[in-house]
Amino acid sequence: MKKTVRSTVKRVPKRGIYDQKEIHRLLDKQFLCHVGFVHHNAPVVIPTMYGRDQNTIYIHGARVSRLVTELEKGIPISISVAQVNGLVLARSAFHHSLNYESVVLFGTGTLVAEDKKVHALKCISDHLIPFRWEEARLPSPKELKATKVIQIPIDEASAKVRTGGPSDDKADYTLSIWAGIIPLTHQYGQPIPDPLMDTPLTVPKSVENIIENQ
Amino acid sequence: MKKTVRSTVKRVPKRGIYDQKEIHRLLDKQFLCHVGFVHHNAPVVIPTMYGRDQNTIYIHGARVSRLVTELEKGIPISISVAQVNGLVLARSAFHHSLNYESVVLFGTGTLVAEDKKVHALKCISDHLIPFRWEEARLPSPKELKATKVIQIPIDEASAKVRTGGPSDDKADYTLSIWAGIIPLTHQYGQPIPDPLMDTPLTVPKSVENIIENQ
Repeated sequence: MKKTVRSTVKRVPKRGIYDQKEIHRLLDKQFLCHVGFVHHNAPVVIPTMYGRDQNTIYIHGARVSRLVTELEKGIPISISVAQVNGLVLARSAFHHSLNYESVVLFGTGTLVAEDKKVHALKCISDHLIPFRWEEARLPSPKELKATKVIQIPIDEASAKVRTGGPSDDKADYTLSIWAGIIPLTHQYGQPIPDPLMDTPLTVPKSVENIIENQ
Repeated sequence: MKKTVRSTVKRVPKRGIYDQKEIHRLLDKQFLCHVGFVHHNAPVVIPTMYGRDQNTIYIHGARVSRLVTELEKGIPISISVAQVNGLVLARSAFHHSLNYESVVLFGTGTLVAEDKKVHALKCISDHLIPFRWEEARLPSPKELKATKVIQIPIDEASAKVRTGGPSDDKADYTLSIWAGIIPLTHQYGQPIPDPLMDTPLTVPKSVENIIENQ
């Protein structure tokens, strides 16, 4: 991944990651991205679902939504994705921190062409839950018409990851203050079937797969 | 909360929440916010820790960091905070969704005055984990000098929350396709003591408190 001035991690640079595979892996683990763009000279940040295929991020929205009608103009975008994995309790208040993994990217979006839209929507569906596309009722022409998809290349991006225990000032290690990590875990619970299902159906492959592999 | 054009939820407006107490409650549950600002005519979105006191958000950073040196200029800011609580599997690919809770706010930051800085940092500490401020070694004059805090009023904000099962098109309810929710839960794990503690200490009140109350 090319390092640009704005994509280079400045605070605690040793936590910066520019490896494309690692950036893809971190992007694939989360469900929401926070998309920033400039509207009427002020920033707007909106959380939204996304998908990834190769080195492209896909974002979709209703044809009339502000998000996609703005992004399709080809304006600059910044996207942030993050997960917190633990609270880091140091001896000093100053060194308290979070364990986290995050990706920040910069780019410009373009509208996905009509003949590529189904593929882009499948990527967003696969990102939410793999194999579901093959189980669900696929989009009708009317639904496709109501939806726009924006593609953004993952060319200017960096990840930042913090792991491990607290890092205190040398003199503080003699203090009698508990220090350590409180892990924060994220887990799928038991699937809750829609009570409106006509007949009871067994949990499908897509759901079994994410629960077994978590 | 006053509703402005940009803070009004446009897509699925019934999910919009403008109640100040509810917005505060949702902000208090998360650890990272995604701060958007405009730098060199392009948006930048950065994940960072935060705190809240009354109707003010606090963000801190190293004195030299781009984030705080930009925000202290009083430029427009947008902040997004979100948590995913479940995957919503509909019968149609089109109606797949997430259960989530999110807050988006707009405002302008100002630098917290020197004599208010300790209070602002305590708010950020209390947000991470209550009662920890009373246990930790408090900031030294040097550490205070190295840190800047930005305050942003929570005046122009909205929350958006989705809960419950899928919402399919009427005709799709007869399809033999499993539909439902896969809950996504977020939990504290067992505290991991720092192996560099001189003598074994019992887990402090701050940690007991968040684990017992989760």
